[in-house]
Amino acid sequence: MEQQPSIGSSSPYYDIVIVGAGPVGLMLSTCLSRWGYKIKHIDNRAEPTPTGRADGIQPRSLDLLRNMGLKSAIMAHKPARVYEVAFWDPPQTGHGIVRTGTWASCPSFIDARYPFTTLLHQGLIERVFIADLEKNGVQIKRPWTITDFKSDNSENLEYPVEVQLKHVDGTASETVRAKYLFSGEGARSFVRQQLGIGVSHKDPIAHVWGVMDGVVKTDFPDIKMKCTIHSEHGSIMVIPREDNMVRLYIQIASSTDPDWDPCKTATEGEVQASAKRILEPYSIEWERVEWYSVYPIGQGISDKYTLDHRVFLGGDACHTHSPKAGQGMNTAFLDAQNLAWKIHAVEGGLADRALLTTYEPERKEVAENLLDFDNKYAKLFSQRPPAAAEVQAASEQSPTHAEDNEFIKTFKESCEFTSGYGVAYGPNVLNWSPSHPAQSALLNPKGTKLRTGRLMMNADVTRVVDANVVYLEQQIPLNGSFRIYVFAGKPSVTQQALKDFAFNLGDKRSFFGAYYCDNIASVSYHDNLDLNPHSLFFTICTVFAARRSSIEISRDLPDLLARYRDLVYADDRWDRHIPDAKAAAHAKMGLDEENGGVVVVRPDGYVGCVASLVEGSGTVDALNDYFSAFCTKKLGIT
Amino acid sequence: MEQQPSIGSSSPYYDIVIVGAGPVGLMLSTCLSRWGYKIKHIDNRAEPTPTGRADGIQPRSLDLLRNMGLKSAIMAHKPARVYEVAFWDPPQTGHGIVRTGTWASCPSFIDARYPFTTLLHQGLIERVFIADLEKNGVQIKRPWTITDFKSDNSENLEYPVEVQLKHVDGTASETVRAKYLFSGEGARSFVRQQLGIGVSHKDPIAHVWGVMDGVVKTDFPDIKMKCTIHSEHGSIMVIPREDNMVRLYIQIASSTDPDWDPCKTATEGEVQASAKRILEPYSIEWERVEWYSVYPIGQGISDKYTLDHRVFLGGDACHTHSPKAGQGMNTAFLDAQNLAWKIHAVEGGLADRALLTTYEPERKEVAENLLDFDNKYAKLFSQRPPAAAEVQAASEQSPTHAEDNEFIKTFKESCEFTSGYGVAYGPNVLNWSPSHPAQSALLNPKGTKLRTGRLMMNADVTRVVDANVVYLEQQIPLNGSFRIYVFAGKPSVTQQALKDFAFNLGDKRSFFGAYYCDNIASVSYHDNLDLNPHSLFFTICTVFAARRSSIEISRDLPDLLARYRDLVYADDRWDRHIPDAKAAAHAKMGLDEENGGVVVVRPDGYVGCVASLVEGSGTVDALNDYFSAFCTKKLGIT
Repeated sequence: MEQQPSIGSSSPYYDIVIVGAGPVGLMLSTCLSRWGYKIKHIDNRAEPTPTGRADGIQPRSLDLLRNMGLKSAIMAHKPARVYEVAFWDPPQTGHGIVRTGTWASCPSFIDARYPFTTLLHQGLIERVFIADLEKNGVQIKRPWTITDFKSDNSENLEYPVEVQLKHVDGTASETVRAKYLFSGEGARSFVRQQLGIGVSHKDPIAHVWGVMDGVVKTDFPDIKMKCTIHSEHGSIMVIPREDNMVRLYIQIASSTDPDWDPCKTATEGEVQASAKRILEPYSIEWERVEWYSVYPIGQGISDKYTLDHRVFLGGDACHTHSPKAGQGMNTAFLDAQNLAWKIHAVEGGLADRALLTTYEPERKEVAENLLDFDNKYAKLFSQRPPAAAEVQAASEQSPTHAEDNEFIKTFKESCEFTSGYGVAYGPNVLNWSPSHPAQSALLNPKGTKLRTGRLMMNADVTRVVDANVVYLEQQIPLNGSFRIYVFAGKPSVTQQALKDFAFNLGDKRSFFGAYYCDNIASVSYHDNLDLNPHSLFFTICTVFAARRSSIEISRDLPDLLARYRDLVYADDRWDRHIPDAKAAAHAKMGLDEENGGVVVVRPDGYVGCVASLVEGSGTVDALNDYFSAFCTKKLGIT
Repeated sequence: MEQQPSIGSSSPYYDIVIVGAGPVGLMLSTCLSRWGYKIKHIDNRAEPTPTGRADGIQPRSLDLLRNMGLKSAIMAHKPARVYEVAFWDPPQTGHGIVRTGTWASCPSFIDARYPFTTLLHQGLIERVFIADLEKNGVQIKRPWTITDFKSDNSENLEYPVEVQLKHVDGTASETVRAKYLFSGEGARSFVRQQLGIGVSHKDPIAHVWGVMDGVVKTDFPDIKMKCTIHSEHGSIMVIPREDNMVRLYIQIASSTDPDWDPCKTATEGEVQASAKRILEPYSIEWERVEWYSVYPIGQGISDKYTLDHRVFLGGDACHTHSPKAGQGMNTAFLDAQNLAWKIHAVEGGLADRALLTTYEPERKEVAENLLDFDNKYAKLFSQRPPAAAEVQAASEQSPTHAEDNEFIKTFKESCEFTSGYGVAYGPNVLNWSPSHPAQSALLNPKGTKLRTGRLMMNADVTRVVDANVVYLEQQIPLNGSFRIYVFAGKPSVTQQALKDFAFNLGDKRSFFGAYYCDNIASVSYHDNLDLNPHSLFFTICTVFAARRSSIEISRDLPDLLARYRDLVYADDRWDRHIPDAKAAAHAKMGLDEENGGVVVVRPDGYVGCVASLVEGSGTVDALNDYFSAFCTKKLGIT
C-alpha cells in the first residue's frame, strides 16, 4: 500500500492491474482505491455497457451497496423491484396459459432489509462505481486491452507481475509492473486462457438464449412481475425493468435438441412472434426494443481462480451459468469483495500472505453451489408446479421446520440462495470451527445462533449519542477492517468484564494493540469520533442490552471503548422476528442478554468467530488465538 | 393556466408573480410550475441562503417532500436527525447541570413514517427546490425587488394585478401583469405594509436571540441531541446539524427584563463565553463558527392573509414566533401548498373562485395554534421538569388515555403538533361536517376513524400489478388532484357496489365525468397507466381487503377503475399499530373490512369526506353533493 519505489505517481508500478470494468473489476477497484491502493484499471470497451446485460441486484447485494454508500445512487435511477415470482402454465384443459401460483422472491422468514430484487441495467450500475472511482483518482483506461503478462514469485520481488497493455487500435502500448493482476474479463478471459486454466462443465447441457429489452403494450396481467411461463409453444421468462421496460428471456435451442446447433439464432421478429404465441390468449406488442441479443451459454467453472496468488480471476471469468437465477453480477460482486479485503490485509501488514489462499476455495464453493442450485431449481419446476398451500407454508414458516416436504425445503433453500443470504464459507483460518487452531473454551458459546462463515444477522438498535434508530449491521462501512461487535449485555453485570476486555485489548501484544496505529493527534476531533483512527484493521462497536436513555457512555464503558462513542448502541428496539425478547439483537444472535458476548465479523460481513465476554483476560486471549491463525505477528499476552 | 393573451412567452403576462425565494415562495412556485402555470419569481438576495437560518424539517414535512419526489435530494446532504429531546437542569444540590429526562420528539403513538426531525441548512433545502423549478423552466430573477403593485378586480380583467419590479441596484425595471401576486418576503413584507395589513401580537413579550452554527469540541454527552438546557448562568438550546455541526440558541434579552432593549446584542465571543458557563461542568471549544446572528423577535400574526384574493401573503410575512419549536419552514411549506392547489382548482376550472376564501381561515388558525402552542410549551417546562415515569407513559400510550394528567396531555398534543401531524382544518366547504351542504346519510359512516380536515392515515399496502410493498398515502404524487381512495372491501362482497360506483362515476354529470378530459389517445400506453390522463382534478385508486395474489384486476374491477391498474392495491400487510386486523388499512381508517368505503382526500393530503360504498347511485350521489359545494358545474345525476 503506497509502498512503490519513489519514482513518482506516473511510474509504471501499481499495487494491482485490473483488466475489465464490469461488476467484478469495478467492485475490486472501488474497494482498493478507497483503501489507498494504486490501481491500473483497463477495459477493452470504449464506454460502459450502453444497454442490456446483467440487471439483477439481489437483496443481500443491496445491503452491500448500502454499506459502501452507493445504494442511493443506484436507487436514484428508479429501478424495478421484484417482490414476487409468478408461474404460468398451460391449463388442465384447453389452450393458452394460466397462473398456477406466485411466491415471494425473498419471503419474510429471510430477515432481509430489502426483500426484493432490484432491476437496473448494468451500464447504470457501472457508472455508479465509475463515479466513485473518479473521486479516488482512478480513471479507467479505455479501450485498452491486455496482450501479455508474466508473474515471477521466485525472487521475492515487490512487484512480481509484469503486464503488457495496449490500446485496442494498436496506437499505444505500455508495460507496467504490479503486485497483483486481476482478470475480470468475462467468460472468454485472456488471462485464464494464457494460464492454461481449464473450465469444467457441471451440467453438460448448453443452451442458446435470446434476450430482449424494451417497452411493450400488453394485457398480460403480470408484466410487471418476474414470471416463468411454460406453454405448448415454448417457454419464456419475464423480468420487469426500470422505465416501464421489460426483459424477455427465450430459450432458442438446447444441446438436448435433436438438431442442436450452438450457432442457432433467431431474429428480433422471430422472438417477438414466438413471445406472442407463448403469451396467448394475452396480446403483446413492442413499442420499442432497446436491446436484443442471442448467445449460447453453458454451465462452467474455472478449475482454478489463481495459480500463484498474484494473478487472480473473478466473476464470469470463473463461472458461467444460465441467466435465470439472476446471480451473475451478485456473485461477481462477492468474488471481488472477498479478494479485496484479503489483499488489503496482506499488503497492509496484518495478515500472512497465506491468507490469499482462502480466496479460491471460498469463492469456488459458492460458484459450485450456484451451479448446483441452478439445476435443482430448474428440476423443481419441471416436475410439478407447487400447490398454493405449499407456497404459503414455505413463505410464512421459520427457515427450518420439521414437517417440511422436499418441495418446501428446496424452496426455502433456494430463496435463501437467490436472495444472497445463503452464501456460506466453510471452516478455515477465518471461519472458526472446532478444528481451528484457536481452542479456547470461550469460543462459540452455547446458544449462539451466529454461524461462522455466514453473514451476521440484521438488527435495529438505537445509537446512544443521538438516539437515532439505525441498522446495526450497516454501522461499520466497508472499510477493510474486521468488525469487533462487543455485545455488552447489561451494564451493571458486565462492568468488570468490559474493563478487563479493554485492558487486555490495550496491551500491545493483543490483536488490537499489535496493529494499533497511533495517529490520534493527526486526525480531527470529529474524524476521531466517526472513524477509527487507531487501526486500519479493526473497528470496534459496543451494544448494550439496555434502554438508550439509561446508558452513560463515559460511566458505563472503559476509555478504550468509550473513545468510539459514535459506535455505541442500545439494544432496545422491538423486532418482529423475535417479539418477546427484551434485547432483540442479543437474543437474535443467541447471546446472553445479561452477559453479552463478542462477535468478530470479517471485513466482508461474514462471521469469523464468537466468544463469551468474561472477566479476566479470557475473551481477548481467545480472540488473540483466533487472529494468530493468520496474522503476521505473534499475539497473546501470556 | 396558459390562457394569457397570445403575445408570446416573453410577454409580461403571468399567472402569478411570486416575491421571495425562501421556503414559502419556493414551495408555491414549485407546485404551480409543475402544474403548468406561468410564473414570475423574484428574490432580492443575489443567491440562495448561504448559511444559517431555518433548518428543521418536521416528520410530516418529510412526507410532503417525498410526495413531491424531493426527499432523496434532501437526504443526500446527510442531514442530522433528531429522535429525542434531552432536558438539562441544575442539580438539586450543588452546581452545574444534570440531565433530568429525555423524550422522543415523535413518539410511536404518532404513526409517522419518519419519526425524527431532519436538520439541514436552509440554503441546501432551497437549492433542491430551485433545481426542480429549473427543470420546469422557472428561473428566479435575482437580485430583484418589488417596488409597487395595484390590484383591480372591478373590471373583471383576466390579469387584474399590475406589479412593478426592479433590479436592486436600480439598473433595470419591469412592469408585469398577473392573475395573482404572492408575498413570501418574510417578516418585513413590503406587500403586507403596502396593503396596510397590521400584525397582532398574541404574547406581548419579545426576545433577542443569539444563534450560532459551527463545529465544537466538547465532552457534553448530548451534543448530538436536541437539548433544552437551563442553568444558573442562563439557558441555551442545542440543535445538531449536518457535517458534525451544532446550532446553539441563546436568549440574550427579553422584554420582561428591567433594562429591556430590543437592540441589545452580544458578540460571538460573549455568546461563546456564556455557553461555556451554562454547560459547566462540561467543556466546549469552537473549532469553527459557520454563522452567527443576533435578532429580536416577537410573536406576531398578520391580521389578514389577503384583502382581495388576488394578492396573498404566506410564511413569515404572516406569522413570526420564537425559533424554539422549529416550525417556521414547515408552516411556510403548508401555507404555500394550501394556496397552490386552490389556485390550480380555480384557474383550471374545477372550483368557484370562492374556494380561495378558504386559504386565510385555514392557514391563520394553524398559525394561531402554533403561537398558542409556543407559549404553552414554554410554560410546561418553566413549571417543572417532567418525571421520568410521565415521559415514558406519554411516549408509549395511545394518543388519548383516560388517566392522562395535564402534563402528559400537553406533551402528547405538543408531539402531534411539532411533528406536523396535528394540523387540523376546521369545517368548511372542503372539510365535511354535519353543517356541510352535502347531507347524504352515507357521508361520515359510523366507525370511521378518519377526521375531516386532518391528514389521511399512513398505511402499507401491496401494489397488485408488481407485488411491491408501498406506502398507500404516498402513491398519488402531489399532482394538484383530489385523491379518491376506493377502499373496496372484499371483492366478493362489493362487486355490485363497485360496478354501480364506476357506472355513476362515468356519468357526465358526476364530479368525475363533468371534469373528464378525454385525452387518452394522446398519451402513451404507459403514461396512461402511471398517471391519470383523464382528469386534471381527480386521481382514483382502489384498495381491496384481500391478499394480493387473490386479486385479478380485470375480473374484480369495472373498466373505469381497472384502467388505473397501477393504482390498485391489496390491504394485506401486517401493521404493528393494529396487529390483529385482517385488513390493516381498512381497520385503521375505521372502514368496514367487508364493505369498504370511499375516502376523498384533498390535493394536499387532508381528508375532505368519507362515504359508505353501497350498491346503487348513493355513493357517487353523496360525493357529487360534496363537490357541488365548491365546484363550478352543477353535479348530480338525478
